[in-house]
Amino acid sequence: MDKQLEKIRHSASHVLAASIKKIYPQAKLGMGPATEDGFYYDFDNLNIKEEDLKKIENEMEKLVSQNIKFSKKYVTKQEAKKLLKNERYKLELLKELKGKISFYTSGNFSDLCKGPHVKSSKEIGAFKLLRLAGAYWRGDSKNKMLTRIYGTAFKTKKELANYLEILKQAEARNHIKLGKELDLFSFQKESPGVPFFHPKGTIIYNQLLNFLREEYKREGYKEVITPVLYDKSLWETSGHWQHFKNDMFTLKIDNRDFALKPMNCPSHCLIYKESLKSYRELPLRIADFGPLHRNEIKGALVGLTRVRKFSQDDAHIFLTENQIEQEISRLINFTNYVYKKVFNFDYSANLSTRPEKYIGDLKLWNTAEKRLKKSLVDNKIKFNMKKGEGTFYGPKIDFDFKDSFGRLYQLATIQLDFQLPQRFNLTYEGEDGKKHTPVMIHRAIFGAVERFMGILIEQYAGKFPLWLAPVQVKIVTVNDLNKKFAGEVLDKFQKSNVRTELDDRPESIGRKIRDAANLKIPIVITIGDKEVSKKKLAVREENKVSFDLDPEKFIKEVCDRISKKC
Amino acid sequence: MDKQLEKIRHSASHVLAASIKKIYPQAKLGMGPATEDGFYYDFDNLNIKEEDLKKIENEMEKLVSQNIKFSKKYVTKQEAKKLLKNERYKLELLKELKGKISFYTSGNFSDLCKGPHVKSSKEIGAFKLLRLAGAYWRGDSKNKMLTRIYGTAFKTKKELANYLEILKQAEARNHIKLGKELDLFSFQKESPGVPFFHPKGTIIYNQLLNFLREEYKREGYKEVITPVLYDKSLWETSGHWQHFKNDMFTLKIDNRDFALKPMNCPSHCLIYKESLKSYRELPLRIADFGPLHRNEIKGALVGLTRVRKFSQDDAHIFLTENQIEQEISRLINFTNYVYKKVFNFDYSANLSTRPEKYIGDLKLWNTAEKRLKKSLVDNKIKFNMKKGEGTFYGPKIDFDFKDSFGRLYQLATIQLDFQLPQRFNLTYEGEDGKKHTPVMIHRAIFGAVERFMGILIEQYAGKFPLWLAPVQVKIVTVNDLNKKFAGEVLDKFQKSNVRTELDDRPESIGRKIRDAANLKIPIVITIGDKEVSKKKLAVREENKVSFDLDPEKFIKEVCDRISKKC
Repeated sequence: MDKQLEKIRHSASHVLAASIKKIYPQAKLGMGPATEDGFYYDFDNLNIKEEDLKKIENEMEKLVSQNIKFSKKYVTKQEAKKLLKNERYKLELLKELKGKISFYTSGNFSDLCKGPHVKSSKEIGAFKLLRLAGAYWRGDSKNKMLTRIYGTAFKTKKELANYLEILKQAEARNHIKLGKELDLFSFQKESPGVPFFHPKGTIIYNQLLNFLREEYKREGYKEVITPVLYDKSLWETSGHWQHFKNDMFTLKIDNRDFALKPMNCPSHCLIYKESLKSYRELPLRIADFGPLHRNEIKGALVGLTRVRKFSQDDAHIFLTENQIEQEISRLINFTNYVYKKVFNFDYSANLSTRPEKYIGDLKLWNTAEKRLKKSLVDNKIKFNMKKGEGTFYGPKIDFDFKDSFGRLYQLATIQLDFQLPQRFNLTYEGEDGKKHTPVMIHRAIFGAVERFMGILIEQYAGKFPLWLAPVQVKIVTVNDLNKKFAGEVLDKFQKSNVRTELDDRPESIGRKIRDAANLKIPIVITIGDKEVSKKKLAVREENKVSFDLDPEKFIKEVCDRISKKC
Repeated sequence: MDKQLEKIRHSASHVLAASIKKIYPQAKLGMGPATEDGFYYDFDNLNIKEEDLKKIENEMEKLVSQNIKFSKKYVTKQEAKKLLKNERYKLELLKELKGKISFYTSGNFSDLCKGPHVKSSKEIGAFKLLRLAGAYWRGDSKNKMLTRIYGTAFKTKKELANYLEILKQAEARNHIKLGKELDLFSFQKESPGVPFFHPKGTIIYNQLLNFLREEYKREGYKEVITPVLYDKSLWETSGHWQHFKNDMFTLKIDNRDFALKPMNCPSHCLIYKESLKSYRELPLRIADFGPLHRNEIKGALVGLTRVRKFSQDDAHIFLTENQIEQEISRLINFTNYVYKKVFNFDYSANLSTRPEKYIGDLKLWNTAEKRLKKSLVDNKIKFNMKKGEGTFYGPKIDFDFKDSFGRLYQLATIQLDFQLPQRFNLTYEGEDGKKHTPVMIHRAIFGAVERFMGILIEQYAGKFPLWLAPVQVKIVTVNDLNKKFAGEVLDKFQKSNVRTELDDRPESIGRKIRDAANLKIPIVITIGDKEVSKKKLAVREENKVSFDLDPEKFIKEVCDRISKKC
């Protein structure tokens, strides 16, 4: 975000706080920063509803139009204490500050604040309050829940209008909303942050896994099924117990510490070790769709995007140093195929290199980075260098994907790891007859399947391509005399493994077509008296209608499109 | 077990204890009962190896051949204490006894024992010691580990010989042994009682699930994916917290009690409740292959048979009372198809009726039992009545399956439940426009997939039928000149989705065929110069060799057999 925009938003949040204090003097101030998308301010002792936002906005408008100046002053901690004597949250923040304490004043409103701010409120070109939310003080669920008001601000009215239009479109595509409307999944209070995939959502989920399983055959991956619960000793070996314990769900079994796995890598190291390995068996590509659990804080849980249980299209590749370059090229091609050819996402890559704190051999790092770079260049992939942003155990390539909406996601990742094979004491017998330590690649194409599915729902606005659609074909009858032929057609589609449903309710044909459209079913076949007498089909797709299609031929065409993932 | 056999085995265990005390006077006596398969005796302070069993057997033989009499006497608790003053485990047992205390004496050996026993040791027709094991005193892992000696005894030498032959055959089929030899799965100390399925085991596992998924399409089941962790409140509603808590793994999250699910039924009730249901939507059949966890005690964990994590081919059917009969018939047919047609198991059924303690309406129970019985009779299923052995929430049908080895397993189950739908307050709108409570059926065909796989491994002695075999076809070359054609054939098989591997190592053809046989691969194709020049295949299957097979035709035949599950 540019500096001026940040100032505008931060200043808008002060104007918000000033307005609140004017209308609701009893409200207590929490924090009010600028964010990537706008700003917010948290208040205690403020009992308002969405419909009050307009009133608050009007008050803000008044203040902004007065061209109020923002001025900074420094006071001693003692003076600050006095100024904030009625603001218990600010006093808590003050305790952590040292030296001179800075305040910003705008009109009658003064706030403990480092700034920077705009000089005058007229620089706030356009702003809007967006919504209310509950937020724990300092993000800690042990603290009190405050009232958060979200808003946004821009340099110009046009920029704000653009942003609001995007918000509106995004809201129509919101995967949580569509997930409910299309009966794909639900959330239940009994298992916070974990989706319950309903039958239709499960079809999409399983189709995504089956698609990868088919690709895995071609790419030489071998799937395994591993436990969920592991003894602490495993996590100590992998280093998770030392570095990741707070993100894991832990429990005691037989008086020993166990954790639900947050990642699959250690289990795959155990399987690798089960038999002696020769260089001839490498690269060994082990894939796992097992459920992973991470203890995300409750307040951070969002739809399918931030969940506590998920499956990754996780694979670990064990290989020799000499195989790195070829394997990376193969992975780049695989990723390219999945995103570009199948899902039609645009993407760019990032190469993250050795950070300041790293482990392992410097020469190996340099060679590995060179190899990753060469693979990217050879495969003509645009990429940004992120110097020093690799993991401590190895360099990595991340892919940023842009959906049809222009939003960026980091999904696929390819990480080299020189460390875990050593920690698990993995070896292979080389051509020289000696024992060597293999290199390991952690890689995911979708990333978390749940999150990927959320992105797909928004990408397609719920209208899944034929091969993924939970219901691929809906047959609707015009009247009861058409039921017999409709049933025969249904049977033929189902026998060809096309997910097909029949709607022969005594409703109007218009209503039935509308219902199918609301469920975003790709192909709707209408069967009336003419179709029955001719034994032909009328087919609607993407608002186009084709008549007199031969059932057998059309089924073949549909199957063909499904298998080609069109 | 008949009474006489029980006496023989119990007496043999006394003869074992007498022999141990003679050879190892320092050993302390634990318990020594008769079992279904023989007997055991536990000892403390006994440090022996398998090779010592012969010596102990010889000592037992001596005692048995002396026609020792077994005589019973009663003593006071005070006298018993004196007699047992050097046996601390027996003293512990004595504490729990009241009134007259009975002892059995045979020769110089006397033991605290209720009996009954044989009159004379000559009644012990034949016996054998089988193996050593560790066993916690009274089965409690908090107690000391004792040395357990297992043996068996029969009325005649012939019966013993028969039993030992069966044991030998069973050992060759032991799924834990075969699982290792065939690289199907392993166990790791980091996750006790949970199999790590290796790539080949995972193929079988996934084939079993895919087989059911195909059947589910025909049978109208809808698959869902549900969480692993649930708040205590869910288990309180279902009753698991009150009745099953010790069998669940529990943990604290955000200061609330959670448990890893041991069963899927409550999750499916939550999904049912997500939308209003009409009688038109019933029966609603919800299936789930999610991982279940049960806190089995560590000492009870055995291979794939007794595990802490497993998936069931679990489904819950919500239906109206009037639909019970038809649905049960459908389930019986489904079960019959799976076991009789696909897996070739023989079976019989058990109908378990209302127990003394039951909940719900007596009239409903009676109707339901009548309906279950009628379904069994109508479908011509042999069944035993198990009066009073139903669950407290409804009557059930269990199926006992006999493998080719004559061993019985209880796998499939169909349980009516009138209770859970009430506890979860489930309803549907009936034809009368009023709200009704649905009935629920819990049903599994395989039961735990892990256990079922263990049974299949033993049933097939590791030689899986073609459709399940991890590697279906192995191509072996006679010499290096055959590699090119072999590669072409490999490619064709793989493109037809036949799981095929090529063995072109520079080994003898005999060795390569033997290796394939050891891995129990159903079809072995040998390619020598003759095959290359004719572009034909030589195929070995079940020790029969066919020559000059046309590759395309043979691939088609193989694919056809796979799809027909031959």
